[in-house]
Amino acid sequence: MSGPVGMALIPAGTPMAVHGLMFTRAFRGQGTPEQYEKFGRRADNCEILGTYAQTELGHGTYLRGLETRADYDRKTDEFVLNTPTLTSYKWWPGGLGQSVNYCIVVAQLYIDNEPLGVQLFVLQVRDEQTHAPLPGIDIGDIGKKIGMQGVNNGYLGLKNVRIPRMNMLMKNAKVLPDGTFVKSPVSQLAYFPMVYVRCMVVLGNSILHAAAATITTRYSAVRRQSPINPDGPEPQVLDHLTQQMKVVPEIATAIAYRIAGGKLYKLFEQTSKDVNRGDYSRLPELHALACTLKASCTYDSAFGIERLRLSCGGHGYLASANLGNLFTSATAACTYEGENSVLYLQVGRILLKTWAEVLAGKQLMPTMTYLSECANWSKFPQWSDDWKCLAQALQYTATNKTRIAFKSYNERLKRGMPQPEAVNATGIELTQAAELHGRAFVTNNFFEEVTGPKAAKRSTSLNKVLEDLLELYLVHTVQRHMADVLRFIPLTDDHLTSLQTRLEAVLARLRPNAVTICDGFDFHDKVLSSVLGCYDGNVYERIFKAAKKSPLNQKAVPASYEQHLKPFMKSNL
Amino acid sequence: MSGPVGMALIPAGTPMAVHGLMFTRAFRGQGTPEQYEKFGRRADNCEILGTYAQTELGHGTYLRGLETRADYDRKTDEFVLNTPTLTSYKWWPGGLGQSVNYCIVVAQLYIDNEPLGVQLFVLQVRDEQTHAPLPGIDIGDIGKKIGMQGVNNGYLGLKNVRIPRMNMLMKNAKVLPDGTFVKSPVSQLAYFPMVYVRCMVVLGNSILHAAAATITTRYSAVRRQSPINPDGPEPQVLDHLTQQMKVVPEIATAIAYRIAGGKLYKLFEQTSKDVNRGDYSRLPELHALACTLKASCTYDSAFGIERLRLSCGGHGYLASANLGNLFTSATAACTYEGENSVLYLQVGRILLKTWAEVLAGKQLMPTMTYLSECANWSKFPQWSDDWKCLAQALQYTATNKTRIAFKSYNERLKRGMPQPEAVNATGIELTQAAELHGRAFVTNNFFEEVTGPKAAKRSTSLNKVLEDLLELYLVHTVQRHMADVLRFIPLTDDHLTSLQTRLEAVLARLRPNAVTICDGFDFHDKVLSSVLGCYDGNVYERIFKAAKKSPLNQKAVPASYEQHLKPFMKSNL
Repeated sequence: MSGPVGMALIPAGTPMAVHGLMFTRAFRGQGTPEQYEKFGRRADNCEILGTYAQTELGHGTYLRGLETRADYDRKTDEFVLNTPTLTSYKWWPGGLGQSVNYCIVVAQLYIDNEPLGVQLFVLQVRDEQTHAPLPGIDIGDIGKKIGMQGVNNGYLGLKNVRIPRMNMLMKNAKVLPDGTFVKSPVSQLAYFPMVYVRCMVVLGNSILHAAAATITTRYSAVRRQSPINPDGPEPQVLDHLTQQMKVVPEIATAIAYRIAGGKLYKLFEQTSKDVNRGDYSRLPELHALACTLKASCTYDSAFGIERLRLSCGGHGYLASANLGNLFTSATAACTYEGENSVLYLQVGRILLKTWAEVLAGKQLMPTMTYLSECANWSKFPQWSDDWKCLAQALQYTATNKTRIAFKSYNERLKRGMPQPEAVNATGIELTQAAELHGRAFVTNNFFEEVTGPKAAKRSTSLNKVLEDLLELYLVHTVQRHMADVLRFIPLTDDHLTSLQTRLEAVLARLRPNAVTICDGFDFHDKVLSSVLGCYDGNVYERIFKAAKKSPLNQKAVPASYEQHLKPFMKSNL
Repeated sequence: MSGPVGMALIPAGTPMAVHGLMFTRAFRGQGTPEQYEKFGRRADNCEILGTYAQTELGHGTYLRGLETRADYDRKTDEFVLNTPTLTSYKWWPGGLGQSVNYCIVVAQLYIDNEPLGVQLFVLQVRDEQTHAPLPGIDIGDIGKKIGMQGVNNGYLGLKNVRIPRMNMLMKNAKVLPDGTFVKSPVSQLAYFPMVYVRCMVVLGNSILHAAAATITTRYSAVRRQSPINPDGPEPQVLDHLTQQMKVVPEIATAIAYRIAGGKLYKLFEQTSKDVNRGDYSRLPELHALACTLKASCTYDSAFGIERLRLSCGGHGYLASANLGNLFTSATAACTYEGENSVLYLQVGRILLKTWAEVLAGKQLMPTMTYLSECANWSKFPQWSDDWKCLAQALQYTATNKTRIAFKSYNERLKRGMPQPEAVNATGIELTQAAELHGRAFVTNNFFEEVTGPKAAKRSTSLNKVLEDLLELYLVHTVQRHMADVLRFIPLTDDHLTSLQTRLEAVLARLRPNAVTICDGFDFHDKVLSSVLGCYDGNVYERIFKAAKKSPLNQKAVPASYEQHLKPFMKSNL
C-alpha cells in the first residue's frame, strides 16, 4: 500500500500508513513476546488500529526535548501519562485525528521524579466498541494541510491517563515492579524503527519522482510548441534541448535513488539479522546512510517534481495533472521522519568523527572508506573521460569538503570555542559536506549497479540505455557540484566544454528512448491519475473532459451573479 | 488589489485581476479613442467586466501558433470568430469561467483567407442582464488548480461568432471597410501590454516572497529546537547557523527584487511616455529586461518560498501557516505571462545579438553596456574585498557565459547547422547566460541603490542594515554561481575561505535584526494570514485554535467509524 497501488487507491495518503510502517512493527521490534501476544497480534490482524505519537506541538526531531511524561506509580503498578503544557500535545501522528483507537506514545519516563529518558508506551485512546475518546484524552484532527488530506493527522492531550506497567514496550529497557529501571543494552536501538521508515521514505519518494517524470515525459512528447525552425511546424516540446534538460535528468535521478534505496534496504535487512543475533556493529553505519539518503532523496525528488511540473507549463498547474499532489506528498517527506537539515547535521557530525579516524589511520565503516582513500591522494589522479573518473571526482570533492569543514571546526576549537558552539558555527560547511557525501554515494552506487557483475545478466540493448542514464546522471551531478569540484580539481576550460558536449550528446541519445524508459516503469494510468500522463497520449481530450466536470460548470449562470456581480456592475462606483 | 490588501481580502486570487491589469488597459493602449469611449470607459467603471483570452488549450507562449481565427466578412463589415479545433479553445484566462461578460480575444486575422498575424478583438461573451452565455459561445471553468482557487480561470470555444469590424482594437494595425489591412508601425508594440503585466508580476512576487520571509523569520524566533550546547536550553531555531542560512538570504532576495522591480517599472513608465511621443527606441531594452526579471524573480521567489516553508518544519505544511498558499501563488507566475524558459531563451537570443554588436564595436542598450566593458578586460581585475568587486564578478561571469554561448552557437553554424537549429542546440548555455545576466542586473542594481546618492538621505543606522543585506546578497549570489565564477576568475582557496567567513559573519550581524527588518515590511497580520507569522508571536495558541476548527473535529466520533472502520476492524481478514 505504500507503493504504486496505494498511490492509485488513496492518492492523498492513508491514515493507516503509520499503523503498518511503525505501530505493528514496534511490538515485534521493541516489545516482549507477551506484549506482541497482547497487542501486536491484534494490530497485525487490524483488530485494533494504531499510530506512533512522537512529535509534539512544540518539539520535533530533538527527542530529548519531548515534554510528555510517564510517571511510574509503584502503588498501582501503573504509569501516569501527562502532557503538562500546550507545547507537549502530541501533534501530527497519521490517523490519530479520527481513525486509530490505539497508539504508541513516546514519553519521558520518570521514576520518583527522576528522568530516565524516552520510552515507548502503548495507549488505548478510543473505545473499541463506540470509538469515543477515553477519559483524560483530548484527541482530534490538526486541520487542513497543503497535501496528504487523506491522513487525518491528529493531536493528543493527556491528563493523568493511567496505563499498566506492562504497557511500556520492554524488549530493551525495562521497569521492574519495584521501580527499578533496567537500561537498554544498546542506546542506538531506540533509533532502529525510524531507520526502517527512512528506508521506506527513500523507496516511496523515488516512486513519486518516477511517476512525475513519466507524466511529464509523455506530455512533452504530445505537447507541441514554438518551432525550432521558423518555417517548420511546432515540434514536440521534448525536441527542445532545454526541455530535455528539465525532464531527462529527473528520470535518471529517480532511478539512481531507487537503486540506492534498494541498497539501503538490503543493509537494513542484514543489520536486522545482526541485531537479532546481538551484533550491533553496523547500526551506526546504517543510521548514517539512512539519514543521508532520506535527506538527499526527499530534497531531490521534491524539487525535481516541482521542476517537472513547471516544465509542463500552465497545464502542470491543473489539479487534474496530479503533479501538484505528487509534489505535496514528496515534499512532506523533507520534514517528517527527521527534518532534513537536522539529518544532514547528524551526518556532518559523523563525518567530523570519521575524519578524526582518517587522521588517526583507523578503519572506517564501509560506506565511508573512500574518505581515507581520497585523503591519501596528494591531488586528484589524471582527469579522463570515463565514468569512474566522474564518480571518483564526487568522492574526492566530498572528501575535501569534509576536510575543510573539519579544519573550520578545529580552528574554532583552537580559538577557544566550546565544541557544541563550534559544531553550530560550522553548520553550513557540515551540511554541504553531508550533501556531497550523499550524492557521491548515490552516484557511485548507480555506477556499480550499471557496470558491475549484474551487467552480464542484462541484454546489450538494456545495458546501452542504462549506460546512457548513468552517463547523464554522472555528468549532471558533477556539473551541479562544479563549484566544489573546481575548488579541488583543476579542470581546464576544455574539460568543462567537454562535459557540456557530453551532456548535450547523451540528452540527444536518450531523447528517442525517453518515453519508452518511462513506460518501462510500468505505472498504470490509474496510478498516475493524470490528464497529462496517460499511456495513450490523449492529453487534450482528457483536460477538456476533466474541466467539464468542474462544479462551477454545473449551472450556466452562477448564483453569485445575481447576488454579487450584477449589483456590483450596475452600481455607481 | 494586487498588493498586500488584495492578499488579505482575496488570498486565493481574484477573478478581476486580469480586468484591471490587462482588459481595461488594452482599450487605452491598443484601442482608438472611439473604442475607449465605447468599451474602455465602461470597463474602467466596472459596468462591464472583462478578461484577456490569449492562451489556448494547445498553445502557449508562442503567439504565432494560436489557432483561433477572425475572418473579415466585407459584406457585413464583421469579423467571424472561430476556434476550429479542440486545441484552439481559449484556456486559462482569469475570471473567464464565471465572472466576466466581455473579453479581448487574441486571434489570427484573416482577410480573404490570407493570414495577417495576431490581432486583438473585443468580444461580449455573456448577456449583460442575465449573464447567460451568448450564442456560439462555449464557456466555462477549467477546474481545480493547485492554487489560485479564487480566479475561476476559464475556457472559451467560438463557433461563427460575429462581431462588428470596429471591435478589432485599431490604435496600431487597422482593417478598413474594404478589407485593406494597415500594418502596425512598430511590431514590438504588440508585446507592450505584456511588459506591463511582467512589471506587476515582479513587484507582486517580491511581495509574496517578503511575506513568506516575514512569517518564517518570526516563527524561527519563537520556535525552539535542539540545544546547541547539550546542557543548555533549546534555543530559538534562528540561533542555528543553518536556519539563518535558510531564512535571511530570502529576506535580502525579496528586497533586491523589489528594488529591481521598481527600476523596471520606472523604465516602463519612461518608455510609455516615449511611445506616446512616437519614440520606440527603448522598447527592445524594456522587453529584454522585463523578460529577464520576470523569469528570475518568479523562480527565485517560488523556490525561495518553498525553502522558507520547509525551514518551518512540519508546521509549515499546515494550510493555516499560509506558506503553501503563498507558494502556489508565486509558482503560478513561473508559467503564466510568458513561460520562464521561453523568456530566458528570448533573452539568450538577445544576448547573442548583443554579443555580435560587442564584436562589431557598436553601442549597446544601457542595461547591456557592461558586456562590452567586461569584454575588453583581458582578465578580471584585482580581486578585493569590496562590494564592487563582487558585483563586477557577476557581470564578468555573465559576459563570459555569453561569450561561450556565442562561441558554441557560432561553431554550430560553421559546421553547417542552420541558424534556428543552432539556437536550439545552444539552449542550455543560452539559458545559463540569461540567468546570470538577470542576477548580475539585480545585484548591481541593489548595490547602486544601497551605495548610491540615496544613501546620503538615509540614517546611518538604516544604511548599516541595508549594507549588511547587500553584503549577504552579494556573497550569497557569488557563491551560488561559483561554478561559473571559478571558470573565469582564478580565485584561490583563501579567497573562497574568506567569502565563507564573510557569509557567516554577516549572518551573525543580521541575526539580531532579522525580525525587525521583517516588521519593517509592515505586513498586517491579516495580510500574512498565518498561524506561524503573527506580530505577537503566539504561534502555538494559534495553531491549536485553528486545529480545533477543523471540520473533522465537529463530532467526537466520525460517521465513517460505524460505516467503514468498525466493520473493517471486526472482520476476519
